[in-house]
Amino acid sequence: MSQSSPPVRSVVVYHSGYGHTRRMAEAVAEGAEATLVEIDPEGNIADDAWEMLGVADAILLGSPTYMGGPSWQFKKFADASSKSWFEGIWQNKIFGGFTNSASINGDKLNTLEYFFLLAGQHGGVWVSMDIKPANRKDSKRDDLNRMGSYIAPMAQTPADASPEEMSPGDLETARRYGARVAMIAGQFQSGKLA
Amino acid sequence: MSQSSPPVRSVVVYHSGYGHTRRMAEAVAEGAEATLVEIDPEGNIADDAWEMLGVADAILLGSPTYMGGPSWQFKKFADASSKSWFEGIWQNKIFGGFTNSASINGDKLNTLEYFFLLAGQHGGVWVSMDIKPANRKDSKRDDLNRMGSYIAPMAQTPADASPEEMSPGDLETARRYGARVAMIAGQFQSGKLA
Amino acid sequence: MSQSSPPVRSVVVYHSGYGHTRRMAEAVAEGAEATLVEIDPEGNIADDAWEMLGVADAILLGSPTYMGGPSWQFKKFADASSKSWFEGIWQNKIFGGFTNSASINGDKLNTLEYFFLLAGQHGGVWVSMDIKPANRKDSKRDDLNRMGSYIAPMAQTPADASPEEMSPGDLETARRYGARVAMIAGQFQSGKLA
Amino acid sequence: MSQSSPPVRSVVVYHSGYGHTRRMAEAVAEGAEATLVEIDPEGNIADDAWEMLGVADAILLGSPTYMGGPSWQFKKFADASSKSWFEGIWQNKIFGGFTNSASINGDKLNTLEYFFLLAGQHGGVWVSMDIKPANRKDSKRDDLNRMGSYIAPMAQTPADASPEEMSPGDLETARRYGARVAMIAGQFQSGKLA
Repeated sequence: MSQSSPPVRSVVVYHSGYGHTRRMAEAVAEGAEATLVEIDPEGNIADDAWEMLGVADAILLGSPTYMGGPSWQFKKFADASSKSWFEGIWQNKIFGGFTNSASINGDKLNTLEYFFLLAGQHGGVWVSMDIKPANRKDSKRDDLNRMGSYIAPMAQTPADASPEEMSPGDLETARRYGARVAMIAGQFQSGKLA
Repeated sequence: MSQSSPPVRSVVVYHSGYGHTRRMAEAVAEGAEATLVEIDPEGNIADDAWEMLGVADAILLGSPTYMGGPSWQFKKFADASSKSWFEGIWQNKIFGGFTNSASINGDKLNTLEYFFLLAGQHGGVWVSMDIKPANRKDSKRDDLNRMGSYIAPMAQTPADASPEEMSPGDLETARRYGARVAMIAGQFQSGKLA
Repeated sequence: MSQSSPPVRSVVVYHSGYGHTRRMAEAVAEGAEATLVEIDPEGNIADDAWEMLGVADAILLGSPTYMGGPSWQFKKFADASSKSWFEGIWQNKIFGGFTNSASINGDKLNTLEYFFLLAGQHGGVWVSMDIKPANRKDSKRDDLNRMGSYIAPMAQTPADASPEEMSPGDLETARRYGARVAMIAGQFQSGKLA
Repeated sequence: MSQSSPPVRSVVVYHSGYGHTRRMAEAVAEGAEATLVEIDPEGNIADDAWEMLGVADAILLGSPTYMGGPSWQFKKFADASSKSWFEGIWQNKIFGGFTNSASINGDKLNTLEYFFLLAGQHGGVWVSMDIKPANRKDSKRDDLNRMGSYIAPMAQTPADASPEEMSPGDLETARRYGARVAMIAGQFQSGKLA
């Protein structure tokens, strides 16, 4: 991109129950140079956060995986986005997502697929990962994409581990994914103006 | 089953936003001779409903499909069932589900798949449909399984139609599925005692 | 896009068992001004088709839905694409998909979700639909997006209907989706050069 | 079950590309006391294997996860099962599944979900896992259900590891799941006769 590229406005909107997904959201936001919007314990966000989402170029969706899917607080946000859907104001935006849970698998894929279906209903464009999985005998817990996820990053934090104990590899994977989504949003944005 | 078969205790637990899923739940419950438990607008059910679920042989899960998945109220119930999961008290129960939405597809499959993932986390046994799809040129809106769904019944009600205007075929499909789930729960229950 | 925009090279790669998905592929290709590549009855494509896919800007994936997913011939193509995956040559391409089956639902969503997972593994960017569902009481069989699909177009053709009898609305939906994917690929392409 | 319980006829039908899924299939079959049917490199099984499946009480489906789903050889078998579907001869059977791949996640959930959708189309009854995930800081590679899977067992074998190097915990998880599916099939079978 040339120096005159328009700035990309990215928003990371997420729910976190115990702070792990928050830490992952911060890593994604650092990569994307995004604004963070946290869904509160009642599943709500402020009115000006809705406005920010309305004008964003890229939206990154985050939630822990609870009982096989995104938390109910995230789903309440998703259901409330039906207003934006009726008006078509998220159409053509760039989307991505991320999730954390205690189990290595634990149906995390289903959470990410739900984020994609939500983005799809809004008429969005989804950006997948570009980091090959670390899946060899000498792969380490802190390798990039040690989870072997493709459509978006996953983090795994044991049930008895604090946010401080999260895998640095998982967080760096999240950070790079954030940067990738913002870069692609920038290319797409430049192309619209070309 | 012999006349001395143990009675099957079935519970239909569902959320309904505008009454359509409630009518479908009533049809399923009629078929299964089940008790109805409605998740309230805040995503809660009464304490004695949790007790009823704990001793049920069969649990049937219902929700409209909103924004590509079950409603947040249903998900709040699902998240709250993590207590039953920790204690393993829903393990080996028979499960089924159902959903309604305005669009013919509209990601209804994702809602049913979520119900299955939830049942799976609880260590449940899932019962699929046994009605072939009505998918020929002369198929009618009121045919059984005109939706062509397999893992559980779907109903489709146009966005501007009231619960009274639901397809009789969709409701009869739901009723028969309820009866099927209860019958299989009964066989399984008899077999445990054999 | 300005007149000097680079041309977009789009490829529609599909399998068709009885001609219905072929007709849908032709509609998508017309919209996208794409080259058609048909996967043969043994699940193979020619070597030069692999080369064409390697240099394409946009890849559109099509298959009937058989037994709940893409046909085995499509899956054989997908498995063979692991070579492109190892080399990372499909990374950052724009992807889309489409499917046809006899039943209204019939697990078509699962086929489209698989296309997305495949595109995701390749590090692709997925383009969703932008046509609201036709889901009112006066909606007709020939309306645009009467299937109510979001992530990509679906067509439904009764089990006893020939390709000639496909819904004009389904085909026009497919054509517009093809045009949309190519347009977004063009914007993304222009943006890379900006 | 009483000593007079009818014998349960279980069949494990699977494809294996490099021997890892075969070893997992053997573990499942050991637990279920099942007959093994291997899908050959061309995606075929013998005629008498189809007959065996037709009279089985329980069918366990296995495949590696390749490019985000079951191998094409497995899908060819699934597509060929459409004959059994038309005739309804797999209806009410008990189903389960299993998969292995090199990455920790690697879309293994999608393979298992496909097995469920296939079983669902056949009108089957799906049995989920009953082993809690090993997801604490002191969890080991050889723990039971260290993958944290619920609907069916997953195994993970690094890309450079031979079948002999598979995780004993993954294999023991598979063996116990096989035993569980057969036990539930037995209960269901006894109940039919009660």
